[in-house]
Amino acid sequence: MFETAELGRKIDKKTYKQRVPPLREQLLRLQEEIRQRGANQVILLIAGVDGGGKGETVNLLNEWMDPRWMMANAYAPPDEVERQRPAFWRYWRDLPPRGRIGMFLSAWYSQPILDRVYGRGTTHEFDARLDRILSFETALADDGAAIVKFWMHLSHAGQERRLRNLEQDPLTQARVTHRDWENWKRYDRFIEVAEHVISRTHTGKTPWVIVEGEDAYYRNLTVGEQICDTLSRIATDPANPSHRPAAAQAANKAEKKKNKAYKRDIKKVTDNINVLTHLDMSQSVSKEHYFAELRELQAEIHLQHLKARHRGIATLLLFEGPDAAGKGGAIRRINTALEARNYQVHGVAKPTDEELAQHYLWRFWRKVPRNGYMAMYDRSWYGRVLVERVEDLAGEDEWRRAYAEINDFEYQLTEHGIILIKYWVHISKDEQLKRFKHRKRTPHKRWKLTEEDWRNRKRWEQYESAVHDMVQYTSTDKAPWTLVAGNDKRYARLTVLQTLRDRWADVLGDAPAQPHGVRDAISQGR
Amino acid sequence: MFETAELGRKIDKKTYKQRVPPLREQLLRLQEEIRQRGANQVILLIAGVDGGGKGETVNLLNEWMDPRWMMANAYAPPDEVERQRPAFWRYWRDLPPRGRIGMFLSAWYSQPILDRVYGRGTTHEFDARLDRILSFETALADDGAAIVKFWMHLSHAGQERRLRNLEQDPLTQARVTHRDWENWKRYDRFIEVAEHVISRTHTGKTPWVIVEGEDAYYRNLTVGEQICDTLSRIATDPANPSHRPAAAQAANKAEKKKNKAYKRDIKKVTDNINVLTHLDMSQSVSKEHYFAELRELQAEIHLQHLKARHRGIATLLLFEGPDAAGKGGAIRRINTALEARNYQVHGVAKPTDEELAQHYLWRFWRKVPRNGYMAMYDRSWYGRVLVERVEDLAGEDEWRRAYAEINDFEYQLTEHGIILIKYWVHISKDEQLKRFKHRKRTPHKRWKLTEEDWRNRKRWEQYESAVHDMVQYTSTDKAPWTLVAGNDKRYARLTVLQTLRDRWADVLGDAPAQPHGVRDAISQGR
Repeated sequence: MFETAELGRKIDKKTYKQRVPPLREQLLRLQEEIRQRGANQVILLIAGVDGGGKGETVNLLNEWMDPRWMMANAYAPPDEVERQRPAFWRYWRDLPPRGRIGMFLSAWYSQPILDRVYGRGTTHEFDARLDRILSFETALADDGAAIVKFWMHLSHAGQERRLRNLEQDPLTQARVTHRDWENWKRYDRFIEVAEHVISRTHTGKTPWVIVEGEDAYYRNLTVGEQICDTLSRIATDPANPSHRPAAAQAANKAEKKKNKAYKRDIKKVTDNINVLTHLDMSQSVSKEHYFAELRELQAEIHLQHLKARHRGIATLLLFEGPDAAGKGGAIRRINTALEARNYQVHGVAKPTDEELAQHYLWRFWRKVPRNGYMAMYDRSWYGRVLVERVEDLAGEDEWRRAYAEINDFEYQLTEHGIILIKYWVHISKDEQLKRFKHRKRTPHKRWKLTEEDWRNRKRWEQYESAVHDMVQYTSTDKAPWTLVAGNDKRYARLTVLQTLRDRWADVLGDAPAQPHGVRDAISQGR
Repeated sequence: MFETAELGRKIDKKTYKQRVPPLREQLLRLQEEIRQRGANQVILLIAGVDGGGKGETVNLLNEWMDPRWMMANAYAPPDEVERQRPAFWRYWRDLPPRGRIGMFLSAWYSQPILDRVYGRGTTHEFDARLDRILSFETALADDGAAIVKFWMHLSHAGQERRLRNLEQDPLTQARVTHRDWENWKRYDRFIEVAEHVISRTHTGKTPWVIVEGEDAYYRNLTVGEQICDTLSRIATDPANPSHRPAAAQAANKAEKKKNKAYKRDIKKVTDNINVLTHLDMSQSVSKEHYFAELRELQAEIHLQHLKARHRGIATLLLFEGPDAAGKGGAIRRINTALEARNYQVHGVAKPTDEELAQHYLWRFWRKVPRNGYMAMYDRSWYGRVLVERVEDLAGEDEWRRAYAEINDFEYQLTEHGIILIKYWVHISKDEQLKRFKHRKRTPHKRWKLTEEDWRNRKRWEQYESAVHDMVQYTSTDKAPWTLVAGNDKRYARLTVLQTLRDRWADVLGDAPAQPHGVRDAISQGR
């Protein structure tokens, strides 16, 4: 793989001086165009052998282009705050918004390669890490990010020459460490691993460019010209996703017109056999039983959360369900059992423009709870495959690929040790109408009922179909959906609390509390 | 002060049950109105004696109101990431955006009070900390934030009763710590300190409400009704700042019409005697001298920054100056001397809507460099008193109070040990015209010249007057302005680099490099 990068290619000073000014001009123009257009993120990953010119390349790009709209990101071993979140959290956090350029030094490739070179971890683990990288990069590329990955290559002898040169210059000697020479000794193994990594993660949308690193002039021009190519591709791409609901809607409509399958889809929906059909909505609990049980559950949950807090185990609950299903009421019953400083309730508001300038999962990544803390989401990232799907706010390709993206995201959460519980609190269509009417009649509840609620209600069957797909594609072993029969509010709340109590009991290693009437009923609701 | 909170006030259950529902309804409505209006932040600070019901109050508000749009913030001792920034960074970071409610548990009051109770620090230091709090809260209140601070009070005997009760309930016993009893033993001292703190930080816009904490019904109603009052005040306040440039412009115009003083102001400007008048703009450097000196300075700066990085000293450079003054060129000469992973260049783009939903300094606070790192700002927070003042983008009261807010902000930076260097890179009006014309003629520079540049140029004298005021009010001992004569680009760049080199030499304790020709000239430019 690297033979083509050991040809000793050089560019003489005169050619270089001639070619750089027009290249810089073009880079600056393209950068400005892309910034003003604001439609795509640009991600430049710069990896390679030590001494291959990674840092120099970042400095060069900062010099050639406008550094105000570029960010360089380098990573030391994770700090306290980063260790408290899933491994990729710090990369998500550092992604450039659309229109800007992010430069990443080795980043997510560094640890998998080094671990492999030094024989840490199994082949299986190594491959799983590469899969993780592939999913991460693909999600961004699908979302319109332009990604180029540079591999700065040096031959074994070339690397030695380069490290010696760096050591001799007082300006750079501090940069050569013992670790660099250790890596140099393992050059062959390093190259072998790199080959595997590159071949596994080189895709049409996330390509690697192997750069011969020894001659700075050659290296600089190669990198600069490659970036020029990439930037001009996205600056002129008419199929560029614009991430505006209006555009998604228009695209969907056009697609639907052409596509007869859509009609069949509607038919299937009216058949109306789905995961919700089998949920026994008649379950209920008496008032006396409810209050006794509630008090007991809250006491258990209170102590369990103190324990989870102490052990550094984070918990994330998300609640989805039709309007007026009682999500907020269930959340409040949990809140009151917890200490105010240890939890946070998140609503899903209209995305801010910083959030719109990122992949749609970014706004949830930024709020992942730290170890020991608890986050409750009243609606969540599933909006992508529920309301955004039904209301044509996301393009069909966007919501279809969201299932895999969400599974990957949740896998990272649970892998980090976060307890993830996903509730679908369901009510029947009749019960919803009853509650809407009650809200309309009751002065202090009227504000909760909006036009949108009535509009959503008209699409009840489409929502059911979307819920069915959602459960089918995203109920995984580590992150299953809990379906809650919500026509009886008391029953629903107890189900929610019991599910949490039982999950915590499993993880915290306590014997679960003794079973009682309602718990048996609940197992049907799962 | 606290006598009025030891009257043993109670509310019976029946009255409570009657009064709560309409109160909750009103709170929910107001919360929703304020959220939709999106004009003001709401900050509820909840402090007081241990066991006084601080946590319960946060839980109560989460239950009574809509927890999705409220955030509770509690603070443990600063973690690794927080220690790397100025002390108030974590509070700035947690401020709610406009329209939302932030609840702060003790927060910025906690450490000053405890340190005082336990006799750590001098009276002078204590008072300085209270001043800091006053400035912080006043800046937010001036910006439209509604602030209420609750002090939960208990008598000495009442506190003992309450702690014992908490200890007896298995649900709450874990909350009573050794430290609580230690504090209880120092009750009298604690109350004495609290009195001083409250009397010093109670202002019309940032009031304290002292709440008798022993009876939960009484406490809940008092807090709820107070919040109702505050929210209804801002929900109906017509003088509410809208933070929209159009509104600021209209207000300014109206004010100017009435105000003859404005005309005198214009006159004063045309007199044109200001700090810039005395800057010797004829200074220049030969090409040979420049390259030799540049190379040497870059080498020194490179090593100095490695040292600063190692010692954990952060550096923040900001560059202001007329369009085409050469700010970007100077920054590039510094960049190339540094390692890419250790610095970041920030441009000042149009604020995002998350930034518009906060105090104008918030977007700079969020980017304060960590210990050891370097940030360079091509334009900065001084936009408030330069372009926003001249172009009527900020109201007069807004930019006038900005000087003090900026001084306070910078004081916190330098107090934390951040090296702050502020450059005004100046060029004459003629030189600017020459550069504009050159840009117009040169194909690869034409994109840099915009309509806005020509428009700004027309207000040259007003900008000079704004610069004069800026230097006068914000050149402080720890954060002085460096005025750089920029008609000769080479001279300007050397001045910028030398200033940085000398500041670093001072701080890092090195003997400054030997003086040479240009350095003498520079001292005039300061």
